[in-house]
Formats: sequence, structure tokens, C-alpha cells
Amino acid sequence: MTNLEDMGKRAREASRALGRLGTAKKEQGLKAAAKALMDGKEEILAANRQDVDAAVKKGMAPGLVDRLMLDEERIQAMADGLMQVAALEDPVGEVLSMKPRPNGLLIGEKRVPLGVVGMIYEARPNVTADAFGLCFKTGNAVILKGGSDALSSNKAVAACLRRGLETEGLPGSALQLIEDTDRETTKKFMTMNQYLDVLIPRGGAGLIQAVVENSTVPVIETGTGNCHIYVDESADIQMALDIVYNAKTQRIGVCNACESLVVHRKAAGEFLPGLKEVLDKKQVEIRADEEARRIVPEFSAAAEEDWGKEYLDYIISVKTVGSLEEAIRHINRYNTRHSEAIITSDYANALKFLEEIDAAAVYVNASTRFTDGYEFGFGAEIGISTQKLHARGPMGLKALTTTKYIIFGDGQVRP
Amino acid sequence: MTNLEDMGKRAREASRALGRLGTAKKEQGLKAAAKALMDGKEEILAANRQDVDAAVKKGMAPGLVDRLMLDEERIQAMADGLMQVAALEDPVGEVLSMKPRPNGLLIGEKRVPLGVVGMIYEARPNVTADAFGLCFKTGNAVILKGGSDALSSNKAVAACLRRGLETEGLPGSALQLIEDTDRETTKKFMTMNQYLDVLIPRGGAGLIQAVVENSTVPVIETGTGNCHIYVDESADIQMALDIVYNAKTQRIGVCNACESLVVHRKAAGEFLPGLKEVLDKKQVEIRADEEARRIVPEFSAAAEEDWGKEYLDYIISVKTVGSLEEAIRHINRYNTRHSEAIITSDYANALKFLEEIDAAAVYVNASTRFTDGYEFGFGAEIGISTQKLHARGPMGLKALTTTKYIIFGDGQVRP
Repeated sequence: MTNLEDMGKRAREASRALGRLGTAKKEQGLKAAAKALMDGKEEILAANRQDVDAAVKKGMAPGLVDRLMLDEERIQAMADGLMQVAALEDPVGEVLSMKPRPNGLLIGEKRVPLGVVGMIYEARPNVTADAFGLCFKTGNAVILKGGSDALSSNKAVAACLRRGLETEGLPGSALQLIEDTDRETTKKFMTMNQYLDVLIPRGGAGLIQAVVENSTVPVIETGTGNCHIYVDESADIQMALDIVYNAKTQRIGVCNACESLVVHRKAAGEFLPGLKEVLDKKQVEIRADEEARRIVPEFSAAAEEDWGKEYLDYIISVKTVGSLEEAIRHINRYNTRHSEAIITSDYANALKFLEEIDAAAVYVNASTRFTDGYEFGFGAEIGISTQKLHARGPMGLKALTTTKYIIFGDGQVRP
Repeated sequence: MTNLEDMGKRAREASRALGRLGTAKKEQGLKAAAKALMDGKEEILAANRQDVDAAVKKGMAPGLVDRLMLDEERIQAMADGLMQVAALEDPVGEVLSMKPRPNGLLIGEKRVPLGVVGMIYEARPNVTADAFGLCFKTGNAVILKGGSDALSSNKAVAACLRRGLETEGLPGSALQLIEDTDRETTKKFMTMNQYLDVLIPRGGAGLIQAVVENSTVPVIETGTGNCHIYVDESADIQMALDIVYNAKTQRIGVCNACESLVVHRKAAGEFLPGLKEVLDKKQVEIRADEEARRIVPEFSAAAEEDWGKEYLDYIISVKTVGSLEEAIRHINRYNTRHSEAIITSDYANALKFLEEIDAAAVYVNASTRFTDGYEFGFGAEIGISTQKLHARGPMGLKALTTTKYIIFGDGQVRP
């Protein structure tokens, strides 16, 4: 069995060294890791073929096999990702503010790495390279625990990345992969408070829930999105249709896709028939409340459980309301605090929605699909936080840092 | 038994209302609460007498009885505290940055309340008023779970505060107190993820450990401090003695008191005899390693377990080292990431210590006792975070807020 204790110690040790590396050296490391990925592509492809063969043999769904599969293009994309992260601005070391106190102490707040980041994820081997890149850039060591279906691929990717680091004289233990996939190991990993500063789960709702419930290490919850669009009484109906079509169908399995519509009664008569027309183009099933079904009887009937559901599929729910207040109450009750939008031409309603909706990202007249690190201008993201502590919304490099106070004195004692 | 589910719902409901209150209205609420405390002082004193009598009867240590006891002055101090918080700048609503994206979306990051704050604390009834004040000021509802020894006092204080809010037409459920003190209730409280946005333990190491281990709600760990002072080879010895005397003895039971000294071999000969002299004034027991005891044989012998101990008492440990690097390794191994100081006159050593020590506050030539919300200029604090996520060091009002992205569009969809 993996000796997690030893891994933890090595990670802590490596994190001390990484914290002292300058930006230039970290950039070299990332470039060397990217090159090593390309140099090792045959080895990675061979390992991935083992995983894919085993997955097909055990009857994995084709969509999941596709996520698991690597080809030369996908390896190139991982390497390109590392190069892009290398080019981002390094947030570490910035002193955010520094002020003198009346007693002469000069107190500054300095951005520093978190230390050791733990990550638990499912079947995509590209996460191995992506997570490493973001953590390394911010001076953090990382311990990864990927899904068992991708184990051979992850091992090969990690081996290449480490080889790249080592050619630059950098510690390979900046990236460690847990190779045991039994429950006991995972459970122990989630309670390694002495060695892990944060644990980030990436995957489906089940995985995230399990980590939140079992981890004693501080967790950043990411990614489940039951995102709503509210079509206000005053909405431009064509704009509403365009945005809903985009937010529902542009990509179906992502956390910022729209899963539920809330429609003001006075807009419903014009909006709902148009909705059926545009969503029929992609065979989206529309599950609506009774009031909406009186307008478009072809809609199927929504059950109470539909309001809270993240479909990640060609399905959307429709709820009719009589006021903006009712819409806000409904959304705050059923949402997952991810991304919510209002379509309106009313100034006061726009501001009220922005103010009162409890979510990481609240939109006026735009698609929820923009909640994303690149779209927000942060570059690559480690995930989208749906909790309120530490980071909320797309988490870029800064979310992988903390601060410490640095205090310059000349003999001050407290009276 | 307390219906925690109902309390959670009421708190969530109240938090929606509090989030919409403006600064002026919150200020009125805090002032009314302060007045209600003073108006209710007889009721509070009577309730407190019950707690104190019961505590004395069951043989509680005098120091703890003193922390439990209220008198008119202490109630006045609670009321004054609320007035001070009322006067602080309101962080809620500030938009930290707002920038247009190339597609015309205008994306801003707005500071908003966390929502519902849970707090678990021990025997000081003043925490009831302090925690309420900071949470209310930041638009958060709070659910408090105090120690059973202070239950009558806490109930009386909470009743007065609520009465104050209600005279201003504000929701009394902004502040709720859990009156059951059984384990089951506490355990359930720690897993109310649906209703609590954060849980903050305040108290001894045992309480904090129990919350970290059992809570599924995100926790901010506060307060244990095994703080070191490193006396460098180049230290001004008189400055070192003054600072150590202050950091060890100015107040003994606090988390930013110094618990351990690390002394460079070349400074030990001059520093250690002086140390004995100044600490003898307060009968501080000095537990030292062998090398230090060869210089001052009157020191008692330190055991391995002394290095990791937060004494909160008139005891200090002394470790001798041969280099700054050894000092940094020792401190990073045994500290609790709270506050650490170097006494030095060497420029490079000062910067190296600031860079490499892993703690919330790192000092050069000053007492560790300054790690405190007031001393840092933040005003009242809800605790001192010793973890790295969300907030690190003294947590003022901002630590009780989060952000949300507000996005202004005019029909944007994702290509």
C-alpha cells in the first residue's frame, strides 16, 4: 500500500523548495515538463491504450471512454496548456498592501503559495497535467488521486512531467500520484491535515459530496451547477431565446449550462411557443409546470424533483412565476450557487436580481456559459468554486495562493 | 430538543433580509442592541449569577470562573464593543474591480455577506455579543452554540440583543442561540451544510480539533499558537530580552504569547544568562536543551514533547541551533502557523526568515503579541485564523464576507 505519510512528507519538503523558486525558474520547469510530455508521447499512448482496452472490455459508456482516451492531439493540448500557464503572470510574492502603524510597525500582506494541494478527480487524464501546471506555477506541491480507470495513463503522464522537472534540477516530488485506488487509501488521504493545506475534488456530484462529507482537510467545493435563466416580464423575447438556446445547447455536459428556466407569466405567452421552436432544433425535452403546459401542451410535466436537478443532458425545466420576487425566491431555493441570469429591459429589475441572487456569478442579459476562467480573463482554472470561503466562481492562479503578514519592527513590544 | 432545521431556515431567511439592509440601518440595529444590553443588565447579571454559582459548586477552576463572570463593567464593555463595530467601515457592497471583456461583458467582483455563520465557543459570555456584532455588521445571520456552563448568561445576553433589533423592526432571528448542549445536537449542527456557510470554533485546542474532525460545513480554524522567537547570532541582546519578556509575560493565556525560543549558538552565551534574569522576575520556568543547560545549569530539561507545546502558562522552552536554516526548519516543523519572530540586525537573515517561515504573521524585531485585529488596524476580530484558506491571521469584518461576480451584458452568447 502507498505510504501516504511518506508522500506527505516529501510533498511538504518539495513545497518549501518550490516556495523559494523565482518566476523564471518555475517557467523553465513548466516548459521542460511540456517538452517531456511530447517526448514521452509513445509511452503515454501505450499506457492509455491499456486503460481504454480495459474500459471497453468492462462495458464503459462510449462518452466516458471518449473522455478517457488520449491521442497525439490531446497530448499536444496538455503540453500547450502547460506553456500557456507558464506565460501567465506569477501571483506569488506580491505584497498586496503595506502600511505603517502608529507604533512604527510596518505591516504588509504578502501573497504566498498554499503549500501542498491535494486533488481527487475522475477519469480524464488531462487533469493530471492541468492540475500540476497550475499548482507548480503557484509554488505548490500537489498530490493527485485520479480515477482507477485512468491509472496507467495518469502514471505515464506523471512520470513524464517529473522527468521534465528533473532535467531542470527541480524536485520530482512536486507532483506525486497516489497509485492505490482502494477506499482506505482515499479515506486516509482526506484526513492528512498535517500534510495537505487544501483538498479539491473535481468530478461528478457524487465524488464532490463524498469528499465534503469525509474530508477533515479544508475542501474547496467545485462544479455542480443547477443554473437558471429568468425571463422577466420586460425581456426582449428574441434575446431571451438566443441566450437560452446558447446556455442550454452550446455544450451539454458542463456545469454552467442552463438547466432551468423561470418565466414571468406576462412573458410566457410569447416566449414559450418560441422556446419550443428553438429547442426542438436540438430535441431538448422541456419539463414544465402546469401553467406553462396550458400555453404549450406538448411540454412534458415537471415534477417537484425537476427543480433541483442538474440534468447535464438535453432536458430543461420551466417554472412560471408572477413576479420578480417569486423568481428570486425560487432560484435561491433550488440553485447550487453557481451561475444565474436574468433577461430584462427593466433597470430596477436588473439591479434587484444582481443584488439578491445568491450565486458565484449573476448575469444580466448574457448566457450562463461564460462562467469560466478563460472567459473571465483569468486564464486556466483549477475549477469553479460553488462555496463561499476562500474563492468563489472560476478559480485561477490566485485561488491557489494564500497570504501571510510580514511585519518589520525595530524593537516594538506591546504595552 | 432544538429543531435545528427550523433554526437553519429562519437564519437563512433572516440572512436574505440582512443582506439587503444598508449600512445606516445596520448601524441603528447595533446601537439598539447595545442599548438593550445595558437596559437588560439586571436580567443578565441574575442569569450570570446562576451560571457562576453552578460553576463554583461543581468546582470549576478560579481562572475559568473569572472568565465566566459578568459584572456591570463587563456588560458595558460588550455594549461598547457593539458601538465600536457600528462605527467601523462597512465592507459589504464594495465592487473590488470591474472590467470590460473583449466581447463587451462588464464583469465586476462585489463583496457580499457570507450568509449564515455558525459559531461554537466555550465559557465566555461576551463572545455572544461580540460574534453577533461582527456578523450583523457584515449582513450575516449567526447561529451560536456556547458552552453549557454559560448557558443562562448567553440566553439572557441573546434575548437582550434580539429585543434591541426588534425595537428597530429588524429580524430577531439574525441571532439564534442553540440551547441544547448534548453531543447529538452539536454533531448535527456541524453537518448543516444546507443552512450554514461557515463554522468558526473559538476555544481551546480540543474544541477546535473536534470541530475540524466532525464538521462537514467549511470551517475556519482559529487560535492555537505555539509561537517562537528566534534570537539570531547578530541579535541586539537587550532588544531580544525586552521582546521575549513582553511576548512571554505580558499576557499569559493568549494564542500570540511566545511559547518557545530558538537561540543561535553564538548568541547563547550572552543571551541565556540575561534570559534567566528577566524571566525570573515572573517565575517563568525555562525548559531548555542540553546545550543551553550547559550555559545556565538552573534551566530545567526540555523533552521532545516540549517543542510542540502551547503552554499558555509561565513556562517557555529553549532550543539551541547552529544556523538560521536550522532555526527555520525547527520552527516550520513545530509551529502552529500562527506568529513567529526573528531578532536580528542582519539584513539578509531578516528577509530569509520573512520568506521561509510558514505562519500567518512573521515578525522582524517585534513581539509576537501584536497579532491581533486592533493592533493590525482592522478593529474587532472574530478570531485569528491559523489555516490558509479564506483568511489568515486576525480576521476582521472582511473575513465575514465573500464575493460574487456581477456581469452586465447586452445579449452575449458563447460562440
